[in-house]
Amino acid sequence: MKVLILGGGGFIGRKLALQLAERGRLRGQDIDRLVLADIIDPVPINAPFPVSYQTCDIADPASVATSIDADVDVIYLLAAVVSAHAEQELEAGIQTNLMGVLNVLERCRSLGTCPVVVFTSSIAVFGGDTPQPFTDVSLPNPQTSYGAQKAMGEYLITDYSRRGLIDGRGFRLPTITVRPGKPNRAASSFMSSIFREPLNGETANCPVDPDFKQLYLSPRKCVENLIKGAELQIEELGQNRCLTMPGQVWTIAEMIDAMTEVAGPDPAARITWNKEPEIDTILKGWHMDIRTDRGLALGLEADSSFQDNIRYYLQDDVAKN
Amino acid sequence: MKVLILGGGGFIGRKLALQLAERGRLRGQDIDRLVLADIIDPVPINAPFPVSYQTCDIADPASVATSIDADVDVIYLLAAVVSAHAEQELEAGIQTNLMGVLNVLERCRSLGTCPVVVFTSSIAVFGGDTPQPFTDVSLPNPQTSYGAQKAMGEYLITDYSRRGLIDGRGFRLPTITVRPGKPNRAASSFMSSIFREPLNGETANCPVDPDFKQLYLSPRKCVENLIKGAELQIEELGQNRCLTMPGQVWTIAEMIDAMTEVAGPDPAARITWNKEPEIDTILKGWHMDIRTDRGLALGLEADSSFQDNIRYYLQDDVAKN
Repeated sequence: MKVLILGGGGFIGRKLALQLAERGRLRGQDIDRLVLADIIDPVPINAPFPVSYQTCDIADPASVATSIDADVDVIYLLAAVVSAHAEQELEAGIQTNLMGVLNVLERCRSLGTCPVVVFTSSIAVFGGDTPQPFTDVSLPNPQTSYGAQKAMGEYLITDYSRRGLIDGRGFRLPTITVRPGKPNRAASSFMSSIFREPLNGETANCPVDPDFKQLYLSPRKCVENLIKGAELQIEELGQNRCLTMPGQVWTIAEMIDAMTEVAGPDPAARITWNKEPEIDTILKGWHMDIRTDRGLALGLEADSSFQDNIRYYLQDDVAKN
Repeated sequence: MKVLILGGGGFIGRKLALQLAERGRLRGQDIDRLVLADIIDPVPINAPFPVSYQTCDIADPASVATSIDADVDVIYLLAAVVSAHAEQELEAGIQTNLMGVLNVLERCRSLGTCPVVVFTSSIAVFGGDTPQPFTDVSLPNPQTSYGAQKAMGEYLITDYSRRGLIDGRGFRLPTITVRPGKPNRAASSFMSSIFREPLNGETANCPVDPDFKQLYLSPRKCVENLIKGAELQIEELGQNRCLTMPGQVWTIAEMIDAMTEVAGPDPAARITWNKEPEIDTILKGWHMDIRTDRGLALGLEADSSFQDNIRYYLQDDVAKN
């Protein structure tokens, strides 16, 4: 079985690759080849099977054709232009988040090999004047270009699957917290920074009020769900290949309390509270009472507590580095 | 005020043009120029203002640039590859129904003139395993490529409007019955043929059972709604620019009874009842218990009866030809 991760240089792509290396198997078969592709060459990983690294821009059909061969069995399509970036540069978002998905699916169509395609959508598809709670059968009414582009990607995944051109499945990712590394251009970036930096002895700013609610999931559970997601059978997915990945709705205040419970009172004292006008409009559109019944019924999982989430970060990202 | 109809050679485009000619005004202003554009040159109409005719393929950005000038105030975006055609030729549907919409919106963005754009979506966006009745906040779960492409078009219309690049609004058209002219490649084509041909003394085949339900609207009311639709104000539209155009749900049997009430028993006797495997799969996916509350609240209208609908056809299309 050959697995390709488009976006294999991103933090989820890398954690997924490491987990696949640890398991060695996917969909009941041994993995005998893993390809990590990204716009910049991914950092190498250790694995019990050969791993290759490619530069790939999904916005470019020729680049996609080089990455997707007829022998690829499973494609993880994680590559994307993130929310604040897509809001600032409409064209960049359209080219990667819409045309990039189309390029991948068209390449699969031309090969005729019907690979499994695991697409990462986002809870940014929700918002606006659709009544809450948002369920798996609510109208996605995104209030960002990123959300609109992800919603369109979902329709492509479902339609190409219905036509038998791919075996697709898409998961709307909750806000993935605590993500390691540096802040990025996602409007949700602070939702990791306010835990990560204080846990590492640095300050971080929280641009929203303590009662701000969101759907959260740890990177560890996200990767487990992406693996389970690839293993779901067609019959389980029905007539809509896209659904919300489970997570839990917490307020900022609840999460800070959980951090204090795990790591003592010092980290919380390192958080500053200043509004940031540039992302305020995006955040206002992110209503976040979300139900994830369908994902739970399919066996995907949320974190059992935010304390666990903090512990995963300390175990997976602080202790190992 | 200059109005452009992309798809001005189609039957709705032509009826809309004739109605605009009769009214002479739109959005409280005199129309001083109308342009009808289509892939083949539209048939000329009489109007109290200058009308020009263009060949335009919305799938071609250069062609779109020729049709959309900076002085266009209102664009009707009706051009599309219809359902059975888009199902047979995925690429044709993608190019016109998705890329065509994007080409129009990108042209508007480059002009910076923020025209009103009235987009015709379709109730084909509904289907699959979304619970009924389908409302304006139900997940569109199309089971045809045409429906998927129309759903994606809706997201583009709403997002470009939110960004202030166009003043867009999209209406999911019910099945428009009784349409004049010849059958086309829409899977819904028979839903007009079984009335039109028998009323004109010819036979026609009905490929579904008499209890098949759909949301229907007459061409006359559809055109009135498209005119009202252009006149809605931004404040009325809120955070989602797309909604279902009102119609009424009727069974085939109810509609045939209505035809008999208006035109006597002979037409109904000219209908044959043979299944057609090619369109059967598409039709099975068209669940049709649809609520149109939002459109009704905005002042758009359904027909008051199918008898009226039959009378409109006899008045507008048979008597005038």
